[in-house]
Amino acid sequence: MQVTHVVNGVDLDRLTATIDHINADPALARFQFRARNQWIDGGHSRTTIKDFYGAGQEDVTRTHPFTVDADEPPVLLGENRAPNTAEYVLHALAACLSGTIVYHAAARGIALEGLETTISGDVDLRGFLGLDSDVRPGYQQIQVTIKANGDFDDAQLAELAGLIRYSPVRDIVSNPVPVEIDVARG
Amino acid sequence: MQVTHVVNGVDLDRLTATIDHINADPALARFQFRARNQWIDGGHSRTTIKDFYGAGQEDVTRTHPFTVDADEPPVLLGENRAPNTAEYVLHALAACLSGTIVYHAAARGIALEGLETTISGDVDLRGFLGLDSDVRPGYQQIQVTIKANGDFDDAQLAELAGLIRYSPVRDIVSNPVPVEIDVARG
Repeated sequence: MQVTHVVNGVDLDRLTATIDHINADPALARFQFRARNQWIDGGHSRTTIKDFYGAGQEDVTRTHPFTVDADEPPVLLGENRAPNTAEYVLHALAACLSGTIVYHAAARGIALEGLETTISGDVDLRGFLGLDSDVRPGYQQIQVTIKANGDFDDAQLAELAGLIRYSPVRDIVSNPVPVEIDVARG
Repeated sequence: MQVTHVVNGVDLDRLTATIDHINADPALARFQFRARNQWIDGGHSRTTIKDFYGAGQEDVTRTHPFTVDADEPPVLLGENRAPNTAEYVLHALAACLSGTIVYHAAARGIALEGLETTISGDVDLRGFLGLDSDVRPGYQQIQVTIKANGDFDDAQLAELAGLIRYSPVRDIVSNPVPVEIDVARG
């Protein structure tokens, strides 16, 4: 009889194996993600995402690239062909908080029935437009509300709330990431 | 005869009008973007993006929500149903740098023929997994290469490179954003 240990859709046997492998060889923890963006017109551009490096090798599981567009709404001189880039940041952060809680809850044996995240971010366009050097171009603050359902007690709810510290995108947004940008003639 | 002033797909008359409106009433520069994420299973979740506030009112131009999924590759216990959240950060940053250069170049009369951005980010999974408290969960560094084509001289190329300072997502990634996260029973 084969027994599988899956909690919240996360295969705990594989998660444990991953942790064991990384503890034995920390170099396996190194990942590099990549993307390529092609400008189309105005605020409209298209990103393709496919290859990445991780667990000691180049990934071979993705046979086709993902394609993701960005655009702006009319008030920002676009045509609503896709969400804008600031909205994608909210998507990335909300989905990352969700996934982080789900994985770490699974590892702690906390079974979730539902997780819904609402998120908003405030920005002052004067930063982007360069109209006031005291105004930052990015979000001034971001608010997130996560509603969790499941068979857990109040102590476990507090544990779930603490899991957000492991979220990669929360770290990226909350703390500085060194970004090196080279602009050259194509 | 109607004369339109469109550079790089950006309507300069509308851009100038927007700047004039905001200079007259800075409150019009306030935008709030929003998203809602629903967990599906494991690392798979779905974000809907539709309404936002900006230019003094709730937007009414989007009749349908955008739907964006996130998942993980098999090595991270997912099924490759969509890019992962760290890859969406790269998409958001690359597309934002592109759009920022395009808009500001248009305002300066620099016509672009092409703009291609390649981006990569390095992460150490021990941060996410909580295996080493000295390792951050997010990107340790991000590298971006932007190749620009068009009829511009070297001084203008240097000007283009400087425009990245106006990019909202570059600011969000490079500098801390206050993020308030509330986790509650649903």
